[in-house]
Amino acid sequence: MNTAATNAELIETKEKMQQERCSSSDRPLDPGCLLPQDAERSADQPGRAVVDFPVAAVLPAGGSGERMGLTTPKQFCSIFNRPLISYTIQAFERLPWIVMVVVVVAKDNHDLMLNIVRKFNHTKVKVVHGGTTRHRSIYNGLQAFSDSTDSSTPKPKVVIIHDAVRPFVEEDLLLKITLAAKEQGASGAIRPLVSTVIATTSESYLDHSLERAKYRASEMPQGFLYDIIFQAYQRCSEFDLEFGTECLHLALQYCGTNARLIEGPPTLWKVTYKRDLAAAEAIIKETLSVSACIIAEAEEEAVELAKTLQKNLNMMETDVIPCGKESNVQYLSKTRNFIHISASASSSLWVLEMVKCFEDIDHARLYPVVIVWVQLSMTKQSADSQETDEFMALASEVKQRNVLLYGIKIDHSKEWHPVWSSAAVAHLLQAWTCCAFRDALLHTSELEQWQRSLERLGQITLVLIRDRNMALTGQMLHV
Amino acid sequence: MNTAATNAELIETKEKMQQERCSSSDRPLDPGCLLPQDAERSADQPGRAVVDFPVAAVLPAGGSGERMGLTTPKQFCSIFNRPLISYTIQAFERLPWIVMVVVVVAKDNHDLMLNIVRKFNHTKVKVVHGGTTRHRSIYNGLQAFSDSTDSSTPKPKVVIIHDAVRPFVEEDLLLKITLAAKEQGASGAIRPLVSTVIATTSESYLDHSLERAKYRASEMPQGFLYDIIFQAYQRCSEFDLEFGTECLHLALQYCGTNARLIEGPPTLWKVTYKRDLAAAEAIIKETLSVSACIIAEAEEEAVELAKTLQKNLNMMETDVIPCGKESNVQYLSKTRNFIHISASASSSLWVLEMVKCFEDIDHARLYPVVIVWVQLSMTKQSADSQETDEFMALASEVKQRNVLLYGIKIDHSKEWHPVWSSAAVAHLLQAWTCCAFRDALLHTSELEQWQRSLERLGQITLVLIRDRNMALTGQMLHV
Repeated sequence: MNTAATNAELIETKEKMQQERCSSSDRPLDPGCLLPQDAERSADQPGRAVVDFPVAAVLPAGGSGERMGLTTPKQFCSIFNRPLISYTIQAFERLPWIVMVVVVVAKDNHDLMLNIVRKFNHTKVKVVHGGTTRHRSIYNGLQAFSDSTDSSTPKPKVVIIHDAVRPFVEEDLLLKITLAAKEQGASGAIRPLVSTVIATTSESYLDHSLERAKYRASEMPQGFLYDIIFQAYQRCSEFDLEFGTECLHLALQYCGTNARLIEGPPTLWKVTYKRDLAAAEAIIKETLSVSACIIAEAEEEAVELAKTLQKNLNMMETDVIPCGKESNVQYLSKTRNFIHISASASSSLWVLEMVKCFEDIDHARLYPVVIVWVQLSMTKQSADSQETDEFMALASEVKQRNVLLYGIKIDHSKEWHPVWSSAAVAHLLQAWTCCAFRDALLHTSELEQWQRSLERLGQITLVLIRDRNMALTGQMLHV
Repeated sequence: MNTAATNAELIETKEKMQQERCSSSDRPLDPGCLLPQDAERSADQPGRAVVDFPVAAVLPAGGSGERMGLTTPKQFCSIFNRPLISYTIQAFERLPWIVMVVVVVAKDNHDLMLNIVRKFNHTKVKVVHGGTTRHRSIYNGLQAFSDSTDSSTPKPKVVIIHDAVRPFVEEDLLLKITLAAKEQGASGAIRPLVSTVIATTSESYLDHSLERAKYRASEMPQGFLYDIIFQAYQRCSEFDLEFGTECLHLALQYCGTNARLIEGPPTLWKVTYKRDLAAAEAIIKETLSVSACIIAEAEEEAVELAKTLQKNLNMMETDVIPCGKESNVQYLSKTRNFIHISASASSSLWVLEMVKCFEDIDHARLYPVVIVWVQLSMTKQSADSQETDEFMALASEVKQRNVLLYGIKIDHSKEWHPVWSSAAVAHLLQAWTCCAFRDALLHTSELEQWQRSLERLGQITLVLIRDRNMALTGQMLHV
């Protein structure tokens, strides 16, 4: 069995895959939810100009998550210590033209939901109690706006209904849904069918299969003129409220409003099963890992290493900047990944300074920020146990602030790399004249070893940034 | 903002989630594909007794993966350096009553597929070339059996058609599909609809929505009497071959065979989008992490630590066994996770011995095996750089054999834990009489610190086993 050959191929396949991750079709094209300044930026974007009427959202989140095989309802399952529903809320809240998000939860989850709103500083949310079915919950959500005595929830022109477990909805689609709803009275997102749909006989036999091209899956979000959907709910039957699932159907049946259908992207997908949580986590991780800022301290070796690392991290957008508070601040809002390269043995001062900056701009509230400290070790000595303990204590301290600190030590003591040290070069030159052949071999092998260390440095840095593993903070890894 | 309270809640939620992972409904109930002895065991299971006729499978795998946003077709995307299609092949190959698996691939992928078959030692596979559409590929696959001059592919009684990108199909369902196909001529797996299906007008308006209860999604696997499905393909039109998607439909239309429909589990799901790869990886990781074997060396401290670790790893099934080749061998086939606890500073001997055992029973061919070395450090000294390099070289060596080696060092030098050292107890007792208050405080804090180390040991061990991260092998972590 030719393991070497197939291994190489598989590695190639894997690398291709990794390169392609950036252009994937089921990732949000607009990573706006991930960086705070995007919300501000979108104030100047088309959405703002076109939507000159009040728009609110209703997120029914009363579900029990039975389908997932979890007792925790899926909307409250956490990714990076933040419940899924907070991600969905944020996808709406960041848009300036959305004035309010009504979240409908089961009575039992009321306090949990309020805690989430408080902890993640959701400012546009109103929490109301759900009913026993999905339609009843949506109706309750809509009623929140009908109380003319409550000035905190003015009646919107258009209301968007969306699932709490579809966190990756993008501004572009919300805009289309909103405008179509304003114009037509109702609108809904659709997707092509993934499987063939078949009609079954009552005896579990095939009756007929549907022609796929004529049918679509009805997804969320859906948009409505508030007056139309509220009227539809007021008019509909108990049977509808109990067994119905489709808001578009109610608008058609009870108000004669035929919805405009808009094909949405694959990102609309709904977290239904437990495996979908892993998929959602993978998407968030990937979106958080598109860029990094490499900060090099003044030592020449640190600067050189920063440049090499930048080359090896070619799957991310990276910038190399010198260390210094002024220059760093501008990068704080551009990325959530920082790689600090230094030759000193202590990290606590600059780490605490960075964390202070993060806190000043509330940079780590919604997503964990990663700091990888690359320590150029100038001596053969490993860290003593006190250094290890201190670094771990520091990491544990900043983790409280949602900052994940990892260390990587790269051994710079060996005189193997001609670029780094003129003494090494001199040594090698001398060796060459004395005993050329053996030393050339030795040199090659040492150079190879250094190259391997550099490669590993790139791989491990990438893994630490991508995985954002909470349990491994404070570790000092070796390459 | 009351961070502490909500944090605690979220941690609780997270813990609940983790506990529930074991009972999830979208995981294969039968982890048979993961351990080699299951294939043998199933020789005594019902399937063997009932299926006394030849059954073959056809896996169309000619797809291009466009939907995923990948240029690598999704069936060739790797999880743990093994392409998805190999997992699906294995799900069939492990069943003794499946005699042959015909894999239909595009001509361009023929060599890649042969390499996969060789590398993962698939013994029942025949690779044939696909056509330009799904139906043409299936037809080509079926034709492999129709050549009476080729004795290597005898005509089966029943043929199962399955997607190469549904790796988690279970024996139970394959058995039901097979028996129903034998009895009725055709059978197919179905699932409830996840979204409402709607009919659209040509102008992108809602026409009507289907009543969900009357319809099902048609999934794979499907089973057929070979003669029926082959005849259906021979009789069907060019239009069917070009635009059709549903084999059940062909059997009905061209042979009058009405398929028996069988509701399948959520594990039937198809890897369609790139996010589904992350979901598949999560499922495989979880299935590989249900159990572990803790091997304790003879030192009293190692045995004590093993017992404590076992308590902290209560989310896995663990056994603690003493070190020794004879006793270990029986565990080799029960789990793919080993935690070795020792106080010695060297690991190479026993690691190489274990890896030798793995190779003897071909234990790491299909899935990576994890070894976590927990080193009880008896001195305050950290590992010197030579030890670090040696451990990394060892890990790099065994990784070639699909064994992932990690280290965790737990500091046992501090005299803080009364259980470990009678000297420490004596010291504490003496201190108590001298200066009771201060020393009691000191003792508490040291005990707390030790407890934290033990907790962290459990967490990190779990993370290493669950993540199976290839880039972090050879690291010596600290707790």
